[in-house]
Amino acid sequence: MVRRILIIGANASGIEAASAARKKDRTAEITLITMEKIAGYSRCGLPFVIGGHIKDFSELIVYSPAYFQMLKLNLRLETKATAINIKDKTITVQNKVGQTENIPYDALVIASGADSFMPPIKGREKQGILSLRNIEDGEKIDTAIKAGAQSAVIMGAGLIGLELAVGLMERGLKVTVVEMLSQILPQLLDADMAKLVQIHLEEKGMQILLNKSVEEFLGDDKITAVKASGDVIKADLFISAFGVRATTKLAADAGIPLGETKAIKTNERMETEVKDVYAVGDCAEAPNIITHKYTCAQLGTVAVREGKVAGANVAGGDSLFGGVLASAVTRIFDIEVGNTGLTETAAARNGIEVVTGTINSKTRADYFPGVTPIRIKLVVEKASLRVIGAQIVGGEEVTQRINCLSLAIQQCMTVHELTKLDTAYAPPLCETWEPMVLAAEMVLMKLR
Amino acid sequence: MVRRILIIGANASGIEAASAARKKDRTAEITLITMEKIAGYSRCGLPFVIGGHIKDFSELIVYSPAYFQMLKLNLRLETKATAINIKDKTITVQNKVGQTENIPYDALVIASGADSFMPPIKGREKQGILSLRNIEDGEKIDTAIKAGAQSAVIMGAGLIGLELAVGLMERGLKVTVVEMLSQILPQLLDADMAKLVQIHLEEKGMQILLNKSVEEFLGDDKITAVKASGDVIKADLFISAFGVRATTKLAADAGIPLGETKAIKTNERMETEVKDVYAVGDCAEAPNIITHKYTCAQLGTVAVREGKVAGANVAGGDSLFGGVLASAVTRIFDIEVGNTGLTETAAARNGIEVVTGTINSKTRADYFPGVTPIRIKLVVEKASLRVIGAQIVGGEEVTQRINCLSLAIQQCMTVHELTKLDTAYAPPLCETWEPMVLAAEMVLMKLR
Repeated sequence: MVRRILIIGANASGIEAASAARKKDRTAEITLITMEKIAGYSRCGLPFVIGGHIKDFSELIVYSPAYFQMLKLNLRLETKATAINIKDKTITVQNKVGQTENIPYDALVIASGADSFMPPIKGREKQGILSLRNIEDGEKIDTAIKAGAQSAVIMGAGLIGLELAVGLMERGLKVTVVEMLSQILPQLLDADMAKLVQIHLEEKGMQILLNKSVEEFLGDDKITAVKASGDVIKADLFISAFGVRATTKLAADAGIPLGETKAIKTNERMETEVKDVYAVGDCAEAPNIITHKYTCAQLGTVAVREGKVAGANVAGGDSLFGGVLASAVTRIFDIEVGNTGLTETAAARNGIEVVTGTINSKTRADYFPGVTPIRIKLVVEKASLRVIGAQIVGGEEVTQRINCLSLAIQQCMTVHELTKLDTAYAPPLCETWEPMVLAAEMVLMKLR
Repeated sequence: MVRRILIIGANASGIEAASAARKKDRTAEITLITMEKIAGYSRCGLPFVIGGHIKDFSELIVYSPAYFQMLKLNLRLETKATAINIKDKTITVQNKVGQTENIPYDALVIASGADSFMPPIKGREKQGILSLRNIEDGEKIDTAIKAGAQSAVIMGAGLIGLELAVGLMERGLKVTVVEMLSQILPQLLDADMAKLVQIHLEEKGMQILLNKSVEEFLGDDKITAVKASGDVIKADLFISAFGVRATTKLAADAGIPLGETKAIKTNERMETEVKDVYAVGDCAEAPNIITHKYTCAQLGTVAVREGKVAGANVAGGDSLFGGVLASAVTRIFDIEVGNTGLTETAAARNGIEVVTGTINSKTRADYFPGVTPIRIKLVVEKASLRVIGAQIVGGEEVTQRINCLSLAIQQCMTVHELTKLDTAYAPPLCETWEPMVLAAEMVLMKLR
């Protein structure tokens, strides 16, 4: 009998699940349902189109229609899943002209993603608040810039907020970022590391207001200013970057349990508590490798890894997801910023006593043209001396150092072992003593 | 009593040993002896001065006289160690005006480095064969270029040979590389990976002649051409890059045993078979982490790591050297080339049955400007599925991938575990699926 695999969502995790399922089952009927007009594009690329690095939003499409055809994936665009009917093993969908239909499944993957979150701020019903979650959002911002917008207020100094802030500045706008907390990038970095990034952004001309809560959107029908902890900030564009929340209404309405993080609860097979229903990507929980607590990392790499596991399983496989470290990286103007594992702050929140080591070093031999500074902070569990987190801010080659330290964490490596790393060296590419090793030495010095 | 520490050699490993000794023993009398006029410079930077990336050889000096003063290191330049007198615990030195002296030691570190190797080729006594081992060598080549040299023959397609070949081309010379073996970079890469690099070099205009043995240097007093497997190649410059050999005469004459590699035999404390005499860097052996066989990697990073261990030990510490993977990397025109652990060829030579996995991928999101190709080859031991080697050729971010895979090898990671790596992603910096993970998947596919 032909297996019927249904996937709600057709971006990173959904398509990965479909592709993995197809690899394992050549005959299955695999259908992807999405509300969007376009499927298979890179959300993470959106700020870089705004910034002008990439010419057009259409270039972000990673999976062309030909890909879906080649893998015989049935893609239904502009189709909304309105109900999951667990008992019947069907979902109800509605197409763009309002026709409804029930589609049966043998296995269902929920890859419904996440939505921009808007706190209950006074005046939020007014027109003019933009966000950046999909291509349509991006096009709205682009249109506003082309129509002459010259200034923007970004509410939230997380990854997406700052990437977009940089993009807008690259297009010539004056940008103010308003953040409720006392530092930028609070999920990614400790305050000491975040300060480095903040200084860089301010040098580039970004205005960053910390410890400011947005209290009210001012203006008649259309917003003309925000009030944040008393200050009134006028601008042409207002962007909500307060964060995203897992899109779970469909699952919750169907009785599929959510976890503590309010994302969909899953096991190590990425299966929900309802048999044959899986959840992956930004709408699903997964355990943190260090704390074993469930988290919802909402990162592209986590999404595709989860999608791959669920895809193999819905096609009859037995694939296990190993958990997340939430390794993340970005480029902000001239610097790269990355994190893996726990920050010092997150470790404290989890009751883990740590020793940290921070080193300022260089990305190339000191005499080599183009050399830039790099700072690495290691977070080490005091009891075991295991590396449990790393943050890096530097001019180049940050990403793969994050991957290297992610691997160290995954392998339960101690900071002693890290000092013994056999590293490669060439003057145009790195320093003789690798900064990761020097950061490990800094930790050991504190322990002596 | 004040400890007297003597170090023969004052570059990477010697200075590292001196610095580590000073850290542990604030009062020791630490003396470094070197034949050179300048100490503490970066040998690895020499080809990049030739290439014009760095203005002057003096910029390669990493340790200034102030450094030696600050650490109270007694540096004796242009001083030749002529004998090690084990029984007396002294060494005999001769200064540049021929005066000799015996210097006593409580602990001795031999960091005498390596010398360029010249095979017994007919006509080798003729004038005009240059090599690139120290600043003086570099200045000779630079002078020759400034005097109008327009072409060069480089004998040997190892790392130094090719780096120098690139440097000469960057200065406008026509360069021919002659290699006895059937591939370039035979120690670093397998033939399939080396071919990629070769194509890049040939596209840039380098002439590479493989399977050609240099048989004779032609010309009267001064060389005007080389004869290689019958071909006569004329040029203005002739550079010997046949490789280097550990400088061991002083040690051997003193009765300090050499190992199978003909470098100085050491234990895990970097101590030779003679008590209180240590050897580090290019003149010393150390075990390979995978095969446990002794090797002489002759790399800057290995040298400093060994120097640090010996330095701590001569100052009364008890530091152990963990062995080498011989991780190495270089930049050759627009590509970066790296290796860690065993190549497929080296594994075969060691009788290790392997499975390999090779992937062609990209260094950034496919749509991101500046994206370049990257190829990764993993070498995995068949019996254990442990990663034991990796080779990478790519446009950027090769070095830290090598370090990451070096860490994987050091941690005895299996290829299965590598597929579970929690990697970081951002469109300007890498692909969603990290190529290292994809290479691991390629290995697993072969095993199914």
